[in-house]
Amino acid sequence: MKVVGVGCGPGMLTEQAVSAISDAAIIFGSKRAIALVAAHIPAGCIVREMVTFSPNQPIPDNAVILSTGDPQLAGLGYLGGEIIPGISSLQVAAARLHVPLEQVSIVIAHGKDHGRALDRIADEVKRGQNTFIIADPKFSITALCTALEGAGEDISIAVCEDLGYPDEKIQIGSIARPPQPVSPLFSVMVGRIESPPGDQKSH
Amino acid sequence: MKVVGVGCGPGMLTEQAVSAISDAAIIFGSKRAIALVAAHIPAGCIVREMVTFSPNQPIPDNAVILSTGDPQLAGLGYLGGEIIPGISSLQVAAARLHVPLEQVSIVIAHGKDHGRALDRIADEVKRGQNTFIIADPKFSITALCTALEGAGEDISIAVCEDLGYPDEKIQIGSIARPPQPVSPLFSVMVGRIESPPGDQKSH
Repeated sequence: MKVVGVGCGPGMLTEQAVSAISDAAIIFGSKRAIALVAAHIPAGCIVREMVTFSPNQPIPDNAVILSTGDPQLAGLGYLGGEIIPGISSLQVAAARLHVPLEQVSIVIAHGKDHGRALDRIADEVKRGQNTFIIADPKFSITALCTALEGAGEDISIAVCEDLGYPDEKIQIGSIARPPQPVSPLFSVMVGRIESPPGDQKSH
Repeated sequence: MKVVGVGCGPGMLTEQAVSAISDAAIIFGSKRAIALVAAHIPAGCIVREMVTFSPNQPIPDNAVILSTGDPQLAGLGYLGGEIIPGISSLQVAAARLHVPLEQVSIVIAHGKDHGRALDRIADEVKRGQNTFIIADPKFSITALCTALEGAGEDISIAVCEDLGYPDEKIQIGSIARPPQPVSPLFSVMVGRIESPPGDQKSH
């Protein structure tokens, strides 16, 4: 079994990912992941759309599992097998915002436990780390900013929507005046972020 | 100017990276970076091998600067311009060792200041984080293990050489019995690492 990172948007497939997909006999993945690789799926390949995977689920040895972004970053790498890295939303955000990755802590705010994620984010920001939040659509920027109260006026909130897609949108605000996402596909970078040249902060 | 991540080994170029290189009129990069993209350099393109770049150095607007791994991870992203992410050694190490990226802190141990890097590594490991060290050839595993004394018997030291290349080698040991790198191109993952299935720890 191979778990193949397909990147967080179009044009991010690596040569290794294209090769794995082109040789595949059976492919599993989300609708979005399948769309990102559609041009490389060979004739006769079985393609199955799946939203969730369980580690106990039987998966054929010759299967290729697609994982948006990088399989090791909130992706399907936990299924095991051979893992082919892909470009994550974190990397695209860091590239756009000109933030060095070694200065970034990562918090996953998926599922019901947003309270615990908010505590971790506040801890990381208060110890001076930029913090990248992989959010689900229900993650509240308002609750984030409540958790960050007192963290400092120099802290920016960058809401990154549809990273890597033609509709990509990055808005930068403050804890007092944060941007709000419209797309369900968003992530957030919190910390000391300078606006890239040519951009204007929204506050 | 574009700064293009070319991955840490062969076969990791993304479609966006291939496109930028195929359209380039002038390319700057290290010998290793140029070798990784050689098949895509167009006829007539000027190619200049460069080892170091200064932010004050005049770089033509139409230049493509190659950065091994990801430009935002100890790469050339600090030069600014449009940045195209690439697959980093961190991502390959995380894929091979089956470590989730959100559990990893990053420490850059380049240059003379290994003492400060060692302090940071010890701090991160002691607060329970897996820690990925981007090392220069002079980084001492022996000094690392001295700095980590008392961090716990369950801490593994994974020395990763030539990640992504045919000669790739990953050895896992303990603080008491660490592996030693032979290649000058290596990185280290420290923390609670389980050996991937089929592998044997070297201790």
